[in-house]
Amino acid sequence: MAIRLGDNQYGKAETRLVRVDRGAGGHTVTDLNVTTTLAGDLDATHLTGDNSGVLPTDTQKNTVYAFARDGVGEIEDFALRLARHFADKTPTITRARVHIERYTWERMGDCSFRRGAGTRTATVSYESGQAWVVSGVEDLVVLNTTGSEFHGFHKDRYTTLPETKDRILATAVSARWRHAAAEGDWAASYDTATRSLLEAFAGTYSLSLQQTLYAMGQYLLSHQDGVAEVRLALPNKHHFLVDLEPFGLDNPGEVYFAADRPYGLIEGTVLRDDAPPAGLAWW
Amino acid sequence: MAIRLGDNQYGKAETRLVRVDRGAGGHTVTDLNVTTTLAGDLDATHLTGDNSGVLPTDTQKNTVYAFARDGVGEIEDFALRLARHFADKTPTITRARVHIERYTWERMGDCSFRRGAGTRTATVSYESGQAWVVSGVEDLVVLNTTGSEFHGFHKDRYTTLPETKDRILATAVSARWRHAAAEGDWAASYDTATRSLLEAFAGTYSLSLQQTLYAMGQYLLSHQDGVAEVRLALPNKHHFLVDLEPFGLDNPGEVYFAADRPYGLIEGTVLRDDAPPAGLAWW
Amino acid sequence: MAIRLGDNQYGKAETRLVRVDRGAGGHTVTDLNVTTTLAGDLDATHLTGDNSGVLPTDTQKNTVYAFARDGVGEIEDFALRLARHFADKTPTITRARVHIERYTWERMGDCSFRRGAGTRTATVSYESGQAWVVSGVEDLVVLNTTGSEFHGFHKDRYTTLPETKDRILATAVSARWRHAAAEGDWAASYDTATRSLLEAFAGTYSLSLQQTLYAMGQYLLSHQDGVAEVRLALPNKHHFLVDLEPFGLDNPGEVYFAADRPYGLIEGTVLRDDAPPAGLAWW
Amino acid sequence: MAIRLGDNQYGKAETRLVRVDRGAGGHTVTDLNVTTTLAGDLDATHLTGDNSGVLPTDTQKNTVYAFARDGVGEIEDFALRLARHFADKTPTITRARVHIERYTWERMGDCSFRRGAGTRTATVSYESGQAWVVSGVEDLVVLNTTGSEFHGFHKDRYTTLPETKDRILATAVSARWRHAAAEGDWAASYDTATRSLLEAFAGTYSLSLQQTLYAMGQYLLSHQDGVAEVRLALPNKHHFLVDLEPFGLDNPGEVYFAADRPYGLIEGTVLRDDAPPAGLAWW
Repeated sequence: MAIRLGDNQYGKAETRLVRVDRGAGGHTVTDLNVTTTLAGDLDATHLTGDNSGVLPTDTQKNTVYAFARDGVGEIEDFALRLARHFADKTPTITRARVHIERYTWERMGDCSFRRGAGTRTATVSYESGQAWVVSGVEDLVVLNTTGSEFHGFHKDRYTTLPETKDRILATAVSARWRHAAAEGDWAASYDTATRSLLEAFAGTYSLSLQQTLYAMGQYLLSHQDGVAEVRLALPNKHHFLVDLEPFGLDNPGEVYFAADRPYGLIEGTVLRDDAPPAGLAWW
Repeated sequence: MAIRLGDNQYGKAETRLVRVDRGAGGHTVTDLNVTTTLAGDLDATHLTGDNSGVLPTDTQKNTVYAFARDGVGEIEDFALRLARHFADKTPTITRARVHIERYTWERMGDCSFRRGAGTRTATVSYESGQAWVVSGVEDLVVLNTTGSEFHGFHKDRYTTLPETKDRILATAVSARWRHAAAEGDWAASYDTATRSLLEAFAGTYSLSLQQTLYAMGQYLLSHQDGVAEVRLALPNKHHFLVDLEPFGLDNPGEVYFAADRPYGLIEGTVLRDDAPPAGLAWW
Repeated sequence: MAIRLGDNQYGKAETRLVRVDRGAGGHTVTDLNVTTTLAGDLDATHLTGDNSGVLPTDTQKNTVYAFARDGVGEIEDFALRLARHFADKTPTITRARVHIERYTWERMGDCSFRRGAGTRTATVSYESGQAWVVSGVEDLVVLNTTGSEFHGFHKDRYTTLPETKDRILATAVSARWRHAAAEGDWAASYDTATRSLLEAFAGTYSLSLQQTLYAMGQYLLSHQDGVAEVRLALPNKHHFLVDLEPFGLDNPGEVYFAADRPYGLIEGTVLRDDAPPAGLAWW
Repeated sequence: MAIRLGDNQYGKAETRLVRVDRGAGGHTVTDLNVTTTLAGDLDATHLTGDNSGVLPTDTQKNTVYAFARDGVGEIEDFALRLARHFADKTPTITRARVHIERYTWERMGDCSFRRGAGTRTATVSYESGQAWVVSGVEDLVVLNTTGSEFHGFHKDRYTTLPETKDRILATAVSARWRHAAAEGDWAASYDTATRSLLEAFAGTYSLSLQQTLYAMGQYLLSHQDGVAEVRLALPNKHHFLVDLEPFGLDNPGEVYFAADRPYGLIEGTVLRDDAPPAGLAWW
């Protein structure tokens, strides 16, 4: 009946790094939120408070800033550099995960920028010389005003939802896709991936949000050989047609109430049959 | 030493309305958050619970949806319709304020949209047949990588801030501008106003965020005769240069820490000398 | 048609200060969020970028920390010390407002604490040797399961709300009360005030949330001679009885849906007839 | 190179349910946020939009409300009822997970309540007649003013953190514990568990937050035979001693800056050697 330590990890969450590259032809801004997570032989600090194997989270933060001095580049590459460093250089640490959010800035001038919507992400997991790279996007909020039906569903005694041949379909796309290899043209890949997701959302005549989810994943994979797998989480942001009859008015698909909670949540994975194993990718 | 009721008001906050206009050439989406506030002779409900003078907030919500059936149009006009209705048609109500937030949606296709950054606002106040219209923008997040100094400030024994000839200037613009009249081309005005704010932010060589604020207000007024007054609230979103010396590195304006709190907050009004009186505009 | 600078102010928002008092019999924690706002002759920085009259917001932050070295005491007193300092010692500054939030910590041991609900606030405004003190509480979330009716309200063509003789009444109290004098036993006053608000909420048989609001204000004033005026903002957090009939079930006031938006918002002031003038209290 | 559907699930997130029990001696309030998640044979809806196997998320919401008519009881039991229902009664569904948050309400009177701090949670996973029950607590914010050291850690070229023999230790406990069996006295277990976590936090002389984490897990397990495993996530909410030397002041552990980001994040599991396998518990 002994009690023991199980899986554990630690790190520095949400180190906010902004790097400015000051080229002659105009500046660029790289605005990041970096979270580093380390695991390895960390029993001593848990059991006796012996910290000799602990690289302080403060040091992890310092490392993020120091590494940025040489340039950040694509966030997948920056995450790879950091993950390899932590796991290869710290005696007790065998695994590292680096998760980066990159905020969108649109150029207004040579040195002026305006924050845009959507967040690009990268997550690198690394162990024993092997790295897994996952890219993603968060808060890509999209809406179709038509082209969405929902009917023919299973009914039980608690079902009251009317079937519909035309509804608003709205979601905030949260997507992550696993690359087959640990190197690539990450910027081009990100642009293709997000364009694929948007085109598939807009272009799919939808009988369920699940069908749209699968179409988005399939479309992304079809346009990028280097992506092994896509994971999508799509909240169904319900828009309810308001009943205007009490006021003597009809409502032919024009006036909606946008609800906050509850919301549907559709989650799914689309992958290639011949995808390399995920390993620690989703750690 | 009698105790009495003072100023009071009530209303329905954050009615979420999405209207779809289904034109042959493509749909449009109007995505609003509407808050209505009423005041008048409401002593009875406070003092005795006699609600005969209270138009329920639920009715206010219903009215927002019912009015949307005829179309929403520009949010200033929609707010005017609602405010006039509430104050003119409800016996006890003499004042109404309607505040509307309109979220940004960018077109992806005839019937597909993607949520963008920034929120347009309108606030209409109305009493005794007179209306005041205020337009605005929220969450317009902007950043200049250079062209900003801060020095020559007052120093006391608690001052440690070094003077700087080059810093990042970043803020989230919150602006409201009061129109001289209760009618106008609101859409064109909004476009001009936000373009003015962005151009002035990007184009001003700044010795203080206050100077930038004034330049933004002045620029907006200079480009729109119909605007009487601008109110701006600009958080100074600090970006601190990270000291990399402990790691043997210099940091020539490249690596920054973006801080959350505390932040500076600069607030100011820019107005015309001959502006009509504000009346209830800022109620 | 000249354009000019109007009202303006600036300051440091949300300086997070935690002070520990390490007494022999046990420690105490004072956990604050301090916002300082200054106004005065600040034309130069707006118009020309001449900052010679600007006390940097960084200095304001430093001052908060330095003043805490001597102890914080009650937040009203700490705000008074800071406001007087900024306005009396800075040549250009004639007005200062200091707003403080104090988070609740409950003792678990001599040196151990657990965060509780609700936030105490103080706002001091100061000019020309005169100070106004406002105390308050935020996020005091309360609910009555019965003892609340709502009927007899004004009906128009958009009214569909059924009258009710029994509903849940729930709100998140946001209250601020203005003291007649700039000195007092602030701790005792706060305890009495919040107890009054809670007792009045719980003890009032309510025909409208407005009636409850007035009762809360009146009760607070009745129990504290030193308070001149109370301002309350009470969101009506709607709880809707769920219609269970489609499932062959009744619902005798048992199963509710707690809605997020929209919500009612009831705001009102209760004051003494002989209250001293508010001056800058609500600046 | 075929593309196929991988793991998937769907459900209704954040159904807000408030149940009132109206006993003669006083009412009770059960305030819940319920998320249901289902998985099974859902290929058709993804691949062709055939929804015949999909129980609508709207029905899941209805079921939550309908089941509440019979009483809610402990959230673990309510989650068990719901999970079994969804998986046993829906032809395509083989797995169900129900996650419930219960908000804290403190009694002020027979029918009056005040919201308190901290949230109790339960997560039930169910498949093929077997259920796994996990209980938890969120947002339990705690702070020790002393009794915490951090030194002897691993140093590399990026380490600048000074060693300390006395620091503030503060965290927001997020804990989940897996029960060995699917039935028990959940209310008593929750009280014991949270008391254990608080006592261990307050009572542990800490050389690292990891050591505190392990102590908390061990203490919880030591006091409850029925708990097989505890998972803890502890953000290290940094409090930095402010350097007051520039103002000619010392700072003997009294004045701190409470930082938002970045923060350390310590995560770990403590379990029994003879714990039954976790199965789907953490699904």
